[in-house]
Amino acid sequence: MRRTVFLLVAIVALAGVLAYTAPISGQGAGEAAPIYDIKIPAGYRDWRLISVAHEEGNLNDLRAQLANDAAIKAFREGKLPFPDGTIIAALHWDYVSSEENNKVFSRVQSFVAGSPKNIQFMVKDSTKYAGTGGWGFADFTAGKPADEAAHKTCFPCHEPVKARDFVYTRYAR
Amino acid sequence: MRRTVFLLVAIVALAGVLAYTAPISGQGAGEAAPIYDIKIPAGYRDWRLISVAHEEGNLNDLRAQLANDAAIKAFREGKLPFPDGTIIAALHWDYVSSEENNKVFSRVQSFVAGSPKNIQFMVKDSTKYAGTGGWGFADFTAGKPADEAAHKTCFPCHEPVKARDFVYTRYAR
Repeated sequence: MRRTVFLLVAIVALAGVLAYTAPISGQGAGEAAPIYDIKIPAGYRDWRLISVAHEEGNLNDLRAQLANDAAIKAFREGKLPFPDGTIIAALHWDYVSSEENNKVFSRVQSFVAGSPKNIQFMVKDSTKYAGTGGWGFADFTAGKPADEAAHKTCFPCHEPVKARDFVYTRYAR
Repeated sequence: MRRTVFLLVAIVALAGVLAYTAPISGQGAGEAAPIYDIKIPAGYRDWRLISVAHEEGNLNDLRAQLANDAAIKAFREGKLPFPDGTIIAALHWDYVSSEENNKVFSRVQSFVAGSPKNIQFMVKDSTKYAGTGGWGFADFTAGKPADEAAHKTCFPCHEPVKARDFVYTRYAR
């Protein structure tokens, strides 16, 4: 009984602490992206890892996709569609050959994340974004959102994966 | 004053809740790696992202490095040496060309994380691992540790970056 009471007090207090601190998946500061009115979510760099990727060609980057709590739960359970409140962050860095690492391997084979390029977000709100599959899209470089024309390209590019609720990234086990 | 008391109660209760749940950076279940006696840490897949990489050659993988609380704090503050209790996880996946993504780009350019290969851990304990720069090393494939011979190769490979406390990975901003 004492343990139950303690736990109850702890849970209520924990909720108080969480409410007191900045919302991890809430809207952050700064300028909002056009069309979708999305700001950089506070604390996104602390979110959990979905997967990683490398794009060659003009993009030439290394990528990581991070998930807020709602998103990581959906990815791990394999549930579609993603629930409202889902936010996926895509972090892109320059694709850099690591001389330091290559010395150890005695050949050019090691590529690491260099300077940050852009950060992109997909935010699920089936009401607000009903016209774009329930998703809002945002793209930022050095904290500044890309222009309206750039944001118009997001949804068409995600349409081919409508069967996976417009999300390309698969969870990396 | 009431706020201060509430916060104190909340903090004490929060500590209680954290103590009650499974230790995130504690030792997990399963077989321990040889030499260093390290098991797969519980909850490591929830840790925060340090950076990502791609190795060509025989390795041919995509990689992510994750950090427990002690590690991410040290990475972000740029403090060396890493404190005791630091654990760095390195997750390696097959480097897979994504047909689905390539269709969108109309060329072969997109590479994603495929099946998991091995997982590696670096555990800082300056007393226990005094003979290897304060670091213990562990390598697991499908939950099973690699053999003793494989583990003997870890420290020599990390010695070239002694100036960065034997850690190759740099934090990706």
